[in-house]
Amino acid sequence: MALVHHPVYNRLGEVIAAALTNLDLHDLARVAATYGARRCFIITPLDDQRALARRLIAHWVEGFGAEHNADRKRAMGLLAVTAALEEAMEAIREDCGGASPRLIATAAREGMGPRVEYNDLAQSLNDAGPPCLLLFGTASGLAEDLLKMVDAVLPPIEGVGGYNHLSVRSAAAIVLDRLRAAGSPPCGGVD
Amino acid sequence: MALVHHPVYNRLGEVIAAALTNLDLHDLARVAATYGARRCFIITPLDDQRALARRLIAHWVEGFGAEHNADRKRAMGLLAVTAALEEAMEAIREDCGGASPRLIATAAREGMGPRVEYNDLAQSLNDAGPPCLLLFGTASGLAEDLLKMVDAVLPPIEGVGGYNHLSVRSAAAIVLDRLRAAGSPPCGGVD
Repeated sequence: MALVHHPVYNRLGEVIAAALTNLDLHDLARVAATYGARRCFIITPLDDQRALARRLIAHWVEGFGAEHNADRKRAMGLLAVTAALEEAMEAIREDCGGASPRLIATAAREGMGPRVEYNDLAQSLNDAGPPCLLLFGTASGLAEDLLKMVDAVLPPIEGVGGYNHLSVRSAAAIVLDRLRAAGSPPCGGVD
Repeated sequence: MALVHHPVYNRLGEVIAAALTNLDLHDLARVAATYGARRCFIITPLDDQRALARRLIAHWVEGFGAEHNADRKRAMGLLAVTAALEEAMEAIREDCGGASPRLIATAAREGMGPRVEYNDLAQSLNDAGPPCLLLFGTASGLAEDLLKMVDAVLPPIEGVGGYNHLSVRSAAAIVLDRLRAAGSPPCGGVD
């Protein structure tokens, strides 16, 4: 999985590089550890923000935090910092014998690209197909320039009343939990 | 739903009153708005922490934030600050013609009390039974003194590898999403 800070929209629909949020790193790392994601990339083109991310991660993986909280160390150790999506894809190719990841985006609105259902994506993850990189956007979500590059987009998370403004922390937790549920045997055992 | 700051455990198993985390308020409010929770109580016995919570909420409901972001205003308007669980229960009784809420706790470990399954709880919510108050613990989770008072406990969130250290922000998002899914017609249409 990857947390993308650029290109994303701000609330005015302008393309920006969003600032890091410390708790995004913690929450996404813990979700990755819970649901068995192999890595969680923190993607930002800003040099100082990458340096900050690396410092935060080092505190928990090598520094005081590592002694203080082994569970957090395990989760934060799944984070990797890159300047761009291509660099994350290259790291995956190196890990996976050259296989390029399938890019799956998440979006809060419908119609952002070719759609993949949770069941189908979970099935392809279970089938040990090509690696998959699940993209989450910060701020007001992934920009169209990035969505044009992905292989498929998951359906928006629907609640019960049309409010669709979850934090990326909440959205990532829900998406990973839905994928785990969809990858389990279906209920009812229909013939 | 309610976010409980006392009595909860710290990492050493001591009962504490945990400090407020700003993003807990935002994320839980947004989850409440998404999944149709009627209110989200922020419970802390510490006077200064309740004052801080009220100030944060007022910024988004009445202050600059309200003009800046109507969606956030709507979510943050669901938050209510109380000193204790009993005070939240009393507020619910006032709203619900005197009906006491069923208290449902969440826990990261098994065996913390009488269990209720997601399907059964979702069914009772759909049946418009008594009001229900879903309790989430900050820090290392709800203390036993509180768990002894609840009517039932939801099963822990299981991922795929035994890591069970999600943030309360992630856990609340997942629990509400699972309840929504469990309240939808089961897949397969089993006879």
